[in-house]
Amino acid sequence: MPERNASIATLKAGYLFPEITRRKEAFLKERPSANLISLGIGDTTEPLSPYIVKGLVSISEALGTPKGYKGYGTDQGEFNLREKIAKKLYRGQITPDEIFLADGAKCDLGRLQLLFGPDTIVAIQDPAYPVYVDTTLISGKKPPILLPCTPENQFFPDLATLPSIDVLFWCSPNNPTGAVSTKKQLKSLVDWAISNRTILVFDAAYSHFIQDPDLPKSIFEIDGADQCAIEVNSFSKMAGFTGVRLSWTAVPKTLKFNDGSSVYKDWQRISSTFFNGPSHIPQGGALALLEDEGLLEAQKIIDHYLENAALLKAALKEKGYTVFGGNNAPYLWIKLPEGIDSWQAFNHFLRNSELVTTPGSGFGPSGEGFLRFSSFGKKEAILQAADRIRRS
Amino acid sequence: MPERNASIATLKAGYLFPEITRRKEAFLKERPSANLISLGIGDTTEPLSPYIVKGLVSISEALGTPKGYKGYGTDQGEFNLREKIAKKLYRGQITPDEIFLADGAKCDLGRLQLLFGPDTIVAIQDPAYPVYVDTTLISGKKPPILLPCTPENQFFPDLATLPSIDVLFWCSPNNPTGAVSTKKQLKSLVDWAISNRTILVFDAAYSHFIQDPDLPKSIFEIDGADQCAIEVNSFSKMAGFTGVRLSWTAVPKTLKFNDGSSVYKDWQRISSTFFNGPSHIPQGGALALLEDEGLLEAQKIIDHYLENAALLKAALKEKGYTVFGGNNAPYLWIKLPEGIDSWQAFNHFLRNSELVTTPGSGFGPSGEGFLRFSSFGKKEAILQAADRIRRS
Repeated sequence: MPERNASIATLKAGYLFPEITRRKEAFLKERPSANLISLGIGDTTEPLSPYIVKGLVSISEALGTPKGYKGYGTDQGEFNLREKIAKKLYRGQITPDEIFLADGAKCDLGRLQLLFGPDTIVAIQDPAYPVYVDTTLISGKKPPILLPCTPENQFFPDLATLPSIDVLFWCSPNNPTGAVSTKKQLKSLVDWAISNRTILVFDAAYSHFIQDPDLPKSIFEIDGADQCAIEVNSFSKMAGFTGVRLSWTAVPKTLKFNDGSSVYKDWQRISSTFFNGPSHIPQGGALALLEDEGLLEAQKIIDHYLENAALLKAALKEKGYTVFGGNNAPYLWIKLPEGIDSWQAFNHFLRNSELVTTPGSGFGPSGEGFLRFSSFGKKEAILQAADRIRRS
Repeated sequence: MPERNASIATLKAGYLFPEITRRKEAFLKERPSANLISLGIGDTTEPLSPYIVKGLVSISEALGTPKGYKGYGTDQGEFNLREKIAKKLYRGQITPDEIFLADGAKCDLGRLQLLFGPDTIVAIQDPAYPVYVDTTLISGKKPPILLPCTPENQFFPDLATLPSIDVLFWCSPNNPTGAVSTKKQLKSLVDWAISNRTILVFDAAYSHFIQDPDLPKSIFEIDGADQCAIEVNSFSKMAGFTGVRLSWTAVPKTLKFNDGSSVYKDWQRISSTFFNGPSHIPQGGALALLEDEGLLEAQKIIDHYLENAALLKAALKEKGYTVFGGNNAPYLWIKLPEGIDSWQAFNHFLRNSELVTTPGSGFGPSGEGFLRFSSFGKKEAILQAADRIRRS
């Protein structure tokens, strides 16, 4: 039989979340009466807003009529939706042509790896969303360089000391640390990328949680980003689309490879070969979401999750933990007491408080000694979780 | 800036269908009054059936309620849908666990490339769906070996003369030739694959057009296929889901790499890293489709397209063309008169009959001298097209 892709063998055993599921299930076998509250995987819990549902139903019904039926859409997604994204979310910094709609940020992060050959030097924040490492390895590249981002350096590396990097994945608001890069930080990152000829893949999937008007929601708010950056974004956390599936990637036409050829053109080719456009139905929902009324409804849901974050943060602080994140971000990143490692803390909260969290070490070596709390949840569950933390 | 993926430069300029679009648009500029009928890209034209729409609407509405809301689904897709596919479409030859739901056959064909390293020797039928070549190259492998499949060999290669092949993409009913592999042919292919340690990637996206009960709809109807085959299939052509996006890949747990490790496990890892599960909404539609009533409605639409094929075939034969396919398949493959090449014939039908077709050479060198007609279309358009062919 054929050889397997040798890179697969180099992956760490088990993607983080399946591993958590396994441990959770083992615990439930041991204590079937447990009333677990999940603060683990960052999954939305609030129903889709009425305006979005109207959009989904309306396109579904249209597809059942001779006049409203559409077969294949364009690979990039519907123009009017891309136009709305450009106008409402980018205020013209990105054109509709530069937006590629897709079925998920994770899926596009994987496809983006195909832009670059096997000798590409990739770097990531440490800790980081595990998909950056895994897609880098599976696509045949060397393991990424890890840039420690910890409380000691305000979650931002010393750019003057970095080695040569071709592609840097950067996530803000950060998953898992909840750190949000400031305008000044992103400006220095863009300047560094341009002078070091690095492409930034900017993951803005949590940007909708940014409420502070001084914090940039998009890398394209920074001068020069159109020379060095690609942005991946999603409706998942913005509007509860985790299971509806709709995302986008913005690739400026000005972005070039070292031979002067267009990144945009290669991305067009890759996405029309490995993808076939997103489903019409989520696009109908997103069109409704981007109406003024839809955006107001979405904001209420974001407010709900941010309130959750504040409740959990207060409880954890009361217990004496040092807590990062949770402002302008859905994740809390707690520093564990000396001598307690991430999986020990995971087990502690699982057994003592019946809370599922995410061990920081699952996100990279610099995540060791930390635990991530997600603030996605129903209000009553979060209130109960906060109470359990206080009583633990 | 980073280097581009060098493989991209080796792709033929322009994916076939964008090239056709460009030529079509140029023609429309020249003759704005033209009343083009598209028999080009294989895109469905009949509205979704009422039963499916009910399924789509019902899940959309549920997602707007606290009780019916679901965030992330499982990466493999909903179990009850996989169970229905296993039961209704595989009659137990494949288990629900071995089915991976996804957002399109094209997308999974691309992801399947990640199972195999860069030294893998890939082979394809010639002519073939261009995505097999393009995903092979972009994923860093050498160009596939082309196995000519022409009227001379009954669209089936002489297996005794084949070189060493690691992975063979095989499509039946075939796109573009409309050829359907017989049980005997597929049995010899499976036996050959097992003795030559080849993995077959069997593309069954058009299997729902097979009406002859003696022709196999799935590679898993063949003894031994669970030792050597992966099957990619889709709701696109079965139920008009081209723009709704839902497909599946069946990977038997018994399938192994040369080191004895499990293909299934690597595929699980790849699809949970590069994909996040299909949208809940199309899955709601497919659940309705797989009810008895839904399947009856789907059959009516398949009958409609097969009638179209018969109408076009009769007209082309009347004009003296030798026509292959169109029985148990939506595509007609016409042999052009000596000395006429595929793009010339494309231009002929465009200019003389205002019909858009697909030049055979776009599918590979053995497609030169042929033209593909798709039978997807509204009845009145097909009748008019048949009439124009007769009058041409």
